[in-house]
Amino acid sequence: MLVIGEKINGMYKAVGKAIQEKNKETIQKLAKDQVAAGADYLDVNTGPSSANPVEAMEWLVDTIQEVTDTPLCLDTTKPEVMEAGLRKCKEKAMINSTPGQQEKLDVFLPLAAKYNASIIGLAMDEKGIPRDAAGRAEIALRIVAAAMEKGINPEDLYIDPLILPVNVAQTTAGQVLESLRQFKLLSDPPPKTVLGLSNVSQGTKYRELINRTYLVMAQACALDAAIIDPLDNELMDAMITAELLLNKNIYCDAFLKAYRKK
Amino acid sequence: MLVIGEKINGMYKAVGKAIQEKNKETIQKLAKDQVAAGADYLDVNTGPSSANPVEAMEWLVDTIQEVTDTPLCLDTTKPEVMEAGLRKCKEKAMINSTPGQQEKLDVFLPLAAKYNASIIGLAMDEKGIPRDAAGRAEIALRIVAAAMEKGINPEDLYIDPLILPVNVAQTTAGQVLESLRQFKLLSDPPPKTVLGLSNVSQGTKYRELINRTYLVMAQACALDAAIIDPLDNELMDAMITAELLLNKNIYCDAFLKAYRKK
Repeated sequence: MLVIGEKINGMYKAVGKAIQEKNKETIQKLAKDQVAAGADYLDVNTGPSSANPVEAMEWLVDTIQEVTDTPLCLDTTKPEVMEAGLRKCKEKAMINSTPGQQEKLDVFLPLAAKYNASIIGLAMDEKGIPRDAAGRAEIALRIVAAAMEKGINPEDLYIDPLILPVNVAQTTAGQVLESLRQFKLLSDPPPKTVLGLSNVSQGTKYRELINRTYLVMAQACALDAAIIDPLDNELMDAMITAELLLNKNIYCDAFLKAYRKK
Repeated sequence: MLVIGEKINGMYKAVGKAIQEKNKETIQKLAKDQVAAGADYLDVNTGPSSANPVEAMEWLVDTIQEVTDTPLCLDTTKPEVMEAGLRKCKEKAMINSTPGQQEKLDVFLPLAAKYNASIIGLAMDEKGIPRDAAGRAEIALRIVAAAMEKGINPEDLYIDPLILPVNVAQTTAGQVLESLRQFKLLSDPPPKTVLGLSNVSQGTKYRELINRTYLVMAQACALDAAIIDPLDNELMDAMITAELLLNKNIYCDAFLKAYRKK
């Protein structure tokens, strides 16, 4: 499983403040801690309140790359912010994300092709998030077809079925598991799958328990990548154990330690 | 999910001793504790060393029924022990189990029909446990067909794909997840599915972590019942959370407590 660390996001108060004050130390510590905990990618989001998001994105990318060569997952809805970040990335980046309507695909897919980046496609469009798995698959198929047209390798396309909080949309979690399986039937080779996990537990009392339970359920249903908090040790233990059970890591008694060492 | 409590098993030293000494208190405490922790059924196994297993089974069933009306899952390979237990059961019992070879099905399925019991069918036969999901499905189909012939309601048939320890047979866990899904396609209405969970972690260092991770992965793949230790609180929390995510319990902030109260 590809672990995309979610902590460098201006939405979090301390990160937002660090961006505003150009406090490298806070950002670099978050980068190093997440990498040490097993992050394969680092999500980078300037947050909603940034006055100059292009500058903020460039500064974040530079700041993080000073301390790690872990690739970055650039998280913005603004094409000009995305391209500013992509231009700075030294490693193969990931674009997070494009929704499924044609005018957005026409902007973000060419960026992925131009910068040889992976890209996350969201199973939503101008009408919002579909109510069921069939609606999600329809949009996913549109994204897969558009990506192929642009010459993007299916290995570089991650479809996110979009999980909603279990306390307000309780049928969604099951539909999303179904979607993950269905996405794998859309093309050959199939696209990859990704989840922004933490949304499932938004507003609930037992956030960590719900997160780690849902993560391994999704792993059992063909999840390839997740945007998560790698500093949540129990979450990482659960994820690593699910990988073991899916025969993706070789068993040894110290399999938790072995995974983290690699 | 149907929780079948695994603790009353003569294989465990304290239980074996209690059976030998006809110590009701030990057995009744295990029965009450498991029911209080959320067991829907109680597994009853006299253990391998019982000198008179018919008498031991009868004593166990009587002893447990003195303190609870929770139904029992009679766990023995010996038809005469099974029937002695079935004769004593006041509630609808479960037969644990029959393998898939015809001569065993010819013995245990009629017992299920005669005593209106549910029955667990194991995806193995005289050649052992199949190497892959297709082999398991073949045996499962044979069991489903034989059960139909005997007039057993598919709702009363639980197929167990048989999980092996992850440290010695690492590909099995994934195949078993696949099997659980495939079993649901064998008939309409489909048979139910069950796992003897603890076997997955036999001989490993992190037994509880592996058990609870695999349980929720299996729940995501259409598991209906599991033979587990309901006194493992974290396991039960994970199971209850997976049920919530599958929309089988209605969300409330105190969903863990609410499940245990019902």
